[in-house]
Amino acid sequence: MPDAKLLETFANPHPRRPYTIEHVAEEFTSLCPKTGHPDFGSVILRYGPGRTCVELKSYKLYLQSFRNQGIFYEDVTNCIAHDLIGLMKPRWLILETRWRGRGGIRSTITVSHGRQG
Amino acid sequence: MPDAKLLETFANPHPRRPYTIEHVAEEFTSLCPKTGHPDFGSVILRYGPGRTCVELKSYKLYLQSFRNQGIFYEDVTNCIAHDLIGLMKPRWLILETRWRGRGGIRSTITVSHGRQG
Amino acid sequence: MPDAKLLETFANPHPRRPYTIEHVAEEFTSLCPKTGHPDFGSVILRYGPGRTCVELKSYKLYLQSFRNQGIFYEDVTNCIAHDLIGLMKPRWLILETRWRGRGGIRSTITVSHGRQG
Amino acid sequence: MPDAKLLETFANPHPRRPYTIEHVAEEFTSLCPKTGHPDFGSVILRYGPGRTCVELKSYKLYLQSFRNQGIFYEDVTNCIAHDLIGLMKPRWLILETRWRGRGGIRSTITVSHGRQG
Amino acid sequence: MPDAKLLETFANPHPRRPYTIEHVAEEFTSLCPKTGHPDFGSVILRYGPGRTCVELKSYKLYLQSFRNQGIFYEDVTNCIAHDLIGLMKPRWLILETRWRGRGGIRSTITVSHGRQG
Amino acid sequence: MPDAKLLETFANPHPRRPYTIEHVAEEFTSLCPKTGHPDFGSVILRYGPGRTCVELKSYKLYLQSFRNQGIFYEDVTNCIAHDLIGLMKPRWLILETRWRGRGGIRSTITVSHGRQG
Amino acid sequence: MPDAKLLETFANPHPRRPYTIEHVAEEFTSLCPKTGHPDFGSVILRYGPGRTCVELKSYKLYLQSFRNQGIFYEDVTNCIAHDLIGLMKPRWLILETRWRGRGGIRSTITVSHGRQG
Amino acid sequence: MPDAKLLETFANPHPRRPYTIEHVAEEFTSLCPKTGHPDFGSVILRYGPGRTCVELKSYKLYLQSFRNQGIFYEDVTNCIAHDLIGLMKPRWLILETRWRGRGGIRSTITVSHGRQG
Amino acid sequence: MPDAKLLETFANPHPRRPYTIEHVAEEFTSLCPKTGHPDFGSVILRYGPGRTCVELKSYKLYLQSFRNQGIFYEDVTNCIAHDLIGLMKPRWLILETRWRGRGGIRSTITVSHGRQG
Amino acid sequence: MPDAKLLETFANPHPRRPYTIEHVAEEFTSLCPKTGHPDFGSVILRYGPGRTCVELKSYKLYLQSFRNQGIFYEDVTNCIAHDLIGLMKPRWLILETRWRGRGGIRSTITVSHGRQG
Repeated sequence: MPDAKLLETFANPHPRRPYTIEHVAEEFTSLCPKTGHPDFGSVILRYGPGRTCVELKSYKLYLQSFRNQGIFYEDVTNCIAHDLIGLMKPRWLILETRWRGRGGIRSTITVSHGRQG
Repeated sequence: MPDAKLLETFANPHPRRPYTIEHVAEEFTSLCPKTGHPDFGSVILRYGPGRTCVELKSYKLYLQSFRNQGIFYEDVTNCIAHDLIGLMKPRWLILETRWRGRGGIRSTITVSHGRQG
Repeated sequence: MPDAKLLETFANPHPRRPYTIEHVAEEFTSLCPKTGHPDFGSVILRYGPGRTCVELKSYKLYLQSFRNQGIFYEDVTNCIAHDLIGLMKPRWLILETRWRGRGGIRSTITVSHGRQG
Repeated sequence: MPDAKLLETFANPHPRRPYTIEHVAEEFTSLCPKTGHPDFGSVILRYGPGRTCVELKSYKLYLQSFRNQGIFYEDVTNCIAHDLIGLMKPRWLILETRWRGRGGIRSTITVSHGRQG
Repeated sequence: MPDAKLLETFANPHPRRPYTIEHVAEEFTSLCPKTGHPDFGSVILRYGPGRTCVELKSYKLYLQSFRNQGIFYEDVTNCIAHDLIGLMKPRWLILETRWRGRGGIRSTITVSHGRQG
Repeated sequence: MPDAKLLETFANPHPRRPYTIEHVAEEFTSLCPKTGHPDFGSVILRYGPGRTCVELKSYKLYLQSFRNQGIFYEDVTNCIAHDLIGLMKPRWLILETRWRGRGGIRSTITVSHGRQG
Repeated sequence: MPDAKLLETFANPHPRRPYTIEHVAEEFTSLCPKTGHPDFGSVILRYGPGRTCVELKSYKLYLQSFRNQGIFYEDVTNCIAHDLIGLMKPRWLILETRWRGRGGIRSTITVSHGRQG
Repeated sequence: MPDAKLLETFANPHPRRPYTIEHVAEEFTSLCPKTGHPDFGSVILRYGPGRTCVELKSYKLYLQSFRNQGIFYEDVTNCIAHDLIGLMKPRWLILETRWRGRGGIRSTITVSHGRQG
Repeated sequence: MPDAKLLETFANPHPRRPYTIEHVAEEFTSLCPKTGHPDFGSVILRYGPGRTCVELKSYKLYLQSFRNQGIFYEDVTNCIAHDLIGLMKPRWLILETRWRGRGGIRSTITVSHGRQG
Repeated sequence: MPDAKLLETFANPHPRRPYTIEHVAEEFTSLCPKTGHPDFGSVILRYGPGRTCVELKSYKLYLQSFRNQGIFYEDVTNCIAHDLIGLMKPRWLILETRWRGRGGIRSTITVSHGRQG
């Protein structure tokens, strides 16, 4: 079950300088809430850090917590974005999920928060 | 025969937050209305959802309904865009069809509705 | 409906010299006999011509005749190989079908007749 | 000899909606007017259709009419753009030619007409 | 928990002719028995069918049954090969698993049964 | 019109040592004898030189001499192989032509003479 | 130990004309300060030179001085950017580090200084 | 020795219409002035022609004249840009050199003149 | 300092069945014994396990122990092969190292032990 | 001028074990003896070392000594093979040169000595 409490932060070591962090997790999996079949995809996170950054190992464990959750593409994307925005209060954040094909159709969902740059 | 009634929607689970949905269907086929020979291509849909989203399986069946239809590239593209705009009232929508070559010429048709972003 | 009578031949212009002909058709489609959903794939034909060669346009029309036929991967492959062997009496022939993924699994079926080379 | 009279149009089936048409012809050849050696390249046409669209088969025959013409890269590009603009009165048009290397140098020529969008 | 009883067969429609069937499943996942972290990989099956063929949907469900199983790479590979050989009695079979990197090292395990060809 | 007299040779500078020469010409074009439309392809020559080698510029002019010739794929391939074998008396020779697609089908023709190696 | 004193400059030979210099170092390695395991990545430097440019060999030795340093991704990136900005006073500078995956997650960190162009 | 006098022009056949010309020379080599070792790279020229265009064969000979010249990356790039701007008076020009790696570092230098468009 | 004592084994779970294990480590680095500059490369291990298999984490730590060792390409390759053969007594083993370029030259060294298959 | 005296060897550190060394030099250039224009290509050396190995830096300088030599493709290949065989007395050796295109034709020349493996 997705669990935002798994997420940890560390203090941004360079809080005054705007810069960009990107993490690409290519091994994401959850379950289709309709059929129970597994979905596979990538989760691309880009953000401008504020006072804190998400700690990489805790982020990995958080993503793994979706493994046996039945959840739609749109909800996965908005859920991860929501949890990370609440956790880090970033200057801006873009969260993109890219899903391998189902029935010959590949999907990508993208949520933006704030203005990059 | 293309049939817009095949299309179904579900309520956008995050209607207040602007975000982007992309579906890439790489297995589209219809017939050339002149020669009767099959055309093969991809249909790329990108949109900003309003109150509803197109349901993925119904969208797949809708695309399959062009299989034995004689129809020009330009009409396929405008027809799908028209049906989806009427169905979902999206904030914005881009519909692109990319066709495999005929006589050594590859074609791409793109229709936009509203302003992305 | 697949129809071997669509296939035509022309006399091999160089019947004494052993050589190899390959035709790759990347726009093959038939229907799944269980679900009725379309299958998409490529058909790769390689053969050493005997007295006759398959005429290219008739071969294309023959492949198109599977468009609305419900038929399994294994049968498509053996059926095309069988029709071409009966038609051309080639020195040798390899018929391979490569199918786009269904449920996350991509399949390839290969039938050989005689000995290449 | 290049011949603009080969070009035919059909009425734009959706004249009110701005959209984009792209045709990529990868099998273009003409002759170098200096050396007589053949030049090979691709012709990429993108345009926003006005009242008419160029008919695809006639466009192919038109491009084939350069086959034995001695003509420089710059002239080919401006000539095709000129003929298509006169023929279709498009909202905008971009005509690009990409040439395979000569003497280790690959060239690309691009002509724009109007403003894309 | 991996369950060979999920596997079903259908009668080989062409039992006299030797031919080759390949299924590539790119969305395999199981758990590391040491750390509990998920492993991701591809399962490539190639075989010469005897009297029966493995049914594709049952094979997919069988592969999904490893999802929450703690099991080493070597055991996954030998286990799937063992179950399929017992099920189908193929003329020959090659089972290969390709694993995404762990600690900067990517692994591939290959089991062969009988002689291809 | 194809003209074998355009071909010239030079003496193999290392006639005692068996070695291999490959020339890949990616800009070959001839005409379809049925439709008159141009065909485009690559010509791959590999051979073990005997006493003479084909001179590269003369070979290029020879290939250009097919430009306005109506000729089938099979004949092009056998014709070039025949002319080069007569010209050079190579230890062995492989001549392959790879053709861009027509009607969604790509073809490759291969002629061998003698035994490589 | 990272050592900014390793860096040397040479006078910009064209100080009046704004232009862009990019250096891509694909063989960067440092140590994870938590686990001691090595990290591997690329360092991409782009800048508009002011009065001086960084000398390439000294830059290489400077990057090598991180080899046995325990340091986080974010700190590596800001540290290199800081040292180069202090050294060269460039018109603008972008420093990007791209890290190979750890635990299935690939990261990229980007620091900008001034305005490109 | 680089020699701008090798460069020749021809009159722009379409001086009123703004368009773009690109020449990519992938076989450039000069010498490192420090070590004497050869440097290898590509020279990418893009410009909007004014009254004249650079003649392609003369441009090739001009680039070959750097073959045995000891010269830094930055100087090569500014030198070629300077010579072409003086020669052609283009509306705008971008000159980019991309160098193969030295000591694990690949470099790209870009000079702009005027405003593209 | 390379240390074979870091290597650990586990009992081959399927010692009777011949099969193949491959581990690709793309993040190998050691030092050039002449210049002290770092070398970067990949280590590809393929073997047929006997009674034991090399444990993956211990193998990673073993490869990391070359990090600050001055050692030639040929010695790295033979050293790793020697240590693994002594450790595991495999049926057969192939050890390949692929090195990134130095001075424009990329090298690969391959050692074989026993006969594959 | 090509100069075999530039080549140096070092003693094979593992003379009893047969193994393979490959060096790929992608930055080779010489001159066409007919036109004086530069030729560019790659030199791929593979060999089984006997008592000595060619030293990498001396090999690089040897290859650079062809820079201003007018010499045909066939001669370059046989010349390098001849010099290395005389120098090292390898168990076996394969020398391949791959040349960038001239007049639309790319060439590869391969010389073998002894029997690999």
